[in-house]
Amino acid sequence: MPRVGHPLDRLFYPESVAIIGASRSPSKFGHIQVANLLNTGFRGRIYPVNPRADEILGLRCYPSVLDVPGHVDVAVVSIPAPKVPGAVEECVEKGVGFVVVISSGFKEAGAEGAELERRMIEAARGTDTRIVGPNTTGILNAENGFTTTFVPIWGPVRPGPVSFIVQTGLFAGSFLMHVLTAERFGLCKVAGLGNKCDLQEAEVLDYLARDKATKVIAMYIEGVGDGRRFMEAAREAAREKPVIVLKSGRTEAGRRAALSHTGTLAGRDEIFDAACRQCGLMRVRDFEEMLDLVKAFAMQPLPRGPRAGVASYTGAGCVIASDECALMGLELAELSEESKARLAKALPPWARPTHPIDLEPLHEAIGPDGYGLALDVLVGDPGVDCVMANIMGLPEEMKGTPFYAGPEDFVRYFSKAREKAPDKPIVVCISGDRESVEASAEALEEAGFPVYPSIRRAIRALSALYRYSLVRKKLIDHRTP
Amino acid sequence: MPRVGHPLDRLFYPESVAIIGASRSPSKFGHIQVANLLNTGFRGRIYPVNPRADEILGLRCYPSVLDVPGHVDVAVVSIPAPKVPGAVEECVEKGVGFVVVISSGFKEAGAEGAELERRMIEAARGTDTRIVGPNTTGILNAENGFTTTFVPIWGPVRPGPVSFIVQTGLFAGSFLMHVLTAERFGLCKVAGLGNKCDLQEAEVLDYLARDKATKVIAMYIEGVGDGRRFMEAAREAAREKPVIVLKSGRTEAGRRAALSHTGTLAGRDEIFDAACRQCGLMRVRDFEEMLDLVKAFAMQPLPRGPRAGVASYTGAGCVIASDECALMGLELAELSEESKARLAKALPPWARPTHPIDLEPLHEAIGPDGYGLALDVLVGDPGVDCVMANIMGLPEEMKGTPFYAGPEDFVRYFSKAREKAPDKPIVVCISGDRESVEASAEALEEAGFPVYPSIRRAIRALSALYRYSLVRKKLIDHRTP
Repeated sequence: MPRVGHPLDRLFYPESVAIIGASRSPSKFGHIQVANLLNTGFRGRIYPVNPRADEILGLRCYPSVLDVPGHVDVAVVSIPAPKVPGAVEECVEKGVGFVVVISSGFKEAGAEGAELERRMIEAARGTDTRIVGPNTTGILNAENGFTTTFVPIWGPVRPGPVSFIVQTGLFAGSFLMHVLTAERFGLCKVAGLGNKCDLQEAEVLDYLARDKATKVIAMYIEGVGDGRRFMEAAREAAREKPVIVLKSGRTEAGRRAALSHTGTLAGRDEIFDAACRQCGLMRVRDFEEMLDLVKAFAMQPLPRGPRAGVASYTGAGCVIASDECALMGLELAELSEESKARLAKALPPWARPTHPIDLEPLHEAIGPDGYGLALDVLVGDPGVDCVMANIMGLPEEMKGTPFYAGPEDFVRYFSKAREKAPDKPIVVCISGDRESVEASAEALEEAGFPVYPSIRRAIRALSALYRYSLVRKKLIDHRTP
Repeated sequence: MPRVGHPLDRLFYPESVAIIGASRSPSKFGHIQVANLLNTGFRGRIYPVNPRADEILGLRCYPSVLDVPGHVDVAVVSIPAPKVPGAVEECVEKGVGFVVVISSGFKEAGAEGAELERRMIEAARGTDTRIVGPNTTGILNAENGFTTTFVPIWGPVRPGPVSFIVQTGLFAGSFLMHVLTAERFGLCKVAGLGNKCDLQEAEVLDYLARDKATKVIAMYIEGVGDGRRFMEAAREAAREKPVIVLKSGRTEAGRRAALSHTGTLAGRDEIFDAACRQCGLMRVRDFEEMLDLVKAFAMQPLPRGPRAGVASYTGAGCVIASDECALMGLELAELSEESKARLAKALPPWARPTHPIDLEPLHEAIGPDGYGLALDVLVGDPGVDCVMANIMGLPEEMKGTPFYAGPEDFVRYFSKAREKAPDKPIVVCISGDRESVEASAEALEEAGFPVYPSIRRAIRALSALYRYSLVRKKLIDHRTP
């Protein structure tokens, strides 16, 4: 089922998959991989390969990939490194499209491993068989439930607009678990590339740039092999959709660690940084910042300009948000006279209609609907391009007080604001009582509003939306002379 | 009960408190304040003052503070701003020690408010009555349950080593709720100063520096009135214990917002920054960073040097941690030959004993005890001054696999490491399955190990411990010539 008309379709939408190293023992990678394909609803053919088993999880087992009837699009290899070159040779003979080598113990592990990696590459050279990895967790496609990961997945993966390219096993480890259990943006495609002995990020970038289901691309890399090719693919991709990049190996100490992790030469950081700016990539410093930006891009539109409207339930939040806007390249919007008059009408006599909007006096005057009014004023003001609201999660015991709004109330206020101005991005910061914060954050994110635990992170996400809108415009202008 | 032999003892340890503006209506500030004092276990006398009530929450009510029998250490005022100067006059007449003015509508609200504030100051000038605020939530002391806050508190506040000085109502709002429901370091004393018409942060700093129960001081301020006095108090305090400062009003936009929030002139940020460096204050950029540092200081000792030992369940974490150490002024430790030999003995043949320690091969070889071994090697190595461990929260379904460790396992591994080297600080980063992450983070923090959701934040906390150890040494050396 080729979706994009691209060679990598066969990797992400295989009709048949062989699991070389499939195991009957439930804790082995080769068992979990088969179980995952059954759990995630993958509808292609699954061929466990293990010379010492007849059946695994109810599926017939084959002694070698050569014994599998019919063609094999993808073979997943989780056997000790010294046996991998032989397995790759068999895959080539079988005409397998992609061999995803999960096993480690190659270039990253010293001279012997490097020799094994060389032999494996040699086995596939000049053939139609491509290698992914080694030393990776490989592929995940939430659309069709295809995955090569050895991290247990107990059900279908929530599909969504975000695709990842990662040069580490981490992704399909705790990071994937975090995304599956704590994030609400939904996954599209994941490519773990490991040592990148054959398939490089440039090719995957090229594929994901064309993939209609992918709206946001996030990458973790330690180094880039072919810099020129990477930059070309990156620039093309960034023209189509936001590309967020976390690159480690920024320091001498980090580069040494990268060498023993994936055998990567990380290169000088200033050069990579300049390349990111030139290609319009959004660079982030850790996975937390990556996810902060990812969910903003996944859930919200790009703003038309830098003018931020801010409402906060505390004065301190107003001050901090003003600082952060200025520090991150946004401007605090000037509210129109009409907006100020609407606020003044609702406020108690001692309070003034300032911007950022301090919600506290509004709550005192009109109760929780102060949230709704402030949002309505902000999105309705022609001088506002984007909105950050700093809200408070109060315990249920405070229901009925002028300050209390629960998850459903928040969803109603924010959804109404979005209806009024669907082109203006809105991000949320929430703090307060833990349970209430979690419930409201979950409800708001389910409704499509990204929620952050700090004003700085919320404003940074808003600023990233704005920066990307500029980058995109520039890249598109450059293409059409 | 004077504890420090300092004038502010009377504010934090009052024997008798009058609540001016006490109310029978459960949603009013003046009701919640009385209820809080009953709920938190405050053992002093409580005098509700309200001319239109006989009894509030079972306590006899007085028409005026002048009618209260016996002396009044602290009066809490939550009545409309125009009535406040009159109430302060009565407090002066009564000989009240401290009047905590919760009400807003003063300098921050324009010319009329400024005039009210002036009259209020005038009423107390030259007397023994001091004013806290106005426009604040005031005081909280977890030790004796005394509080003036209008945020509902339903039980005793967890006592601990952390004291806050804040120039905003925020603290006793959502921030306090967050601390009470989501943090595990415990509170000591909180002083909300609001517009600071009389009591300034310098005096409170001086008090908290001498307060034995306070081990860490954290401040949120928007501006400083008397810069010289502040710096003197700050330097003295930083010599005794870490002082963490969040100051907003860093930009022109922020300074404008601060002016309408607490009527503060925020001043130039470079000057404040230089002052912080000179006095040894640790400056942070938001409440998240403040709490990150607070819990490290509250739970862990200061390291003897900058050499960090790192273990991570992923190679990517090793690379990122190496980068962050280098970027934040720590050094990646060189492990001793003995340490390397211990690791090599446990590792599978294909893996090498590198530092940072990649936990994955250790788990493959010896199961979850890989955590214990890595920690034991790190704290036992004479070349390691401090430790960051990046661990993985796996779902309970994975119990029994070589990678799974649950909350009790983690507490056992980390506690054993602390026992071996109680002088080496240990911080933790955890990610993975949400439920498991929350359970393990909670258990570890209950056991005294600060836990972070990102490696960058964990290393930053470790680096802050180290930086403060240098600052403290410098400040102490300067005192004794």
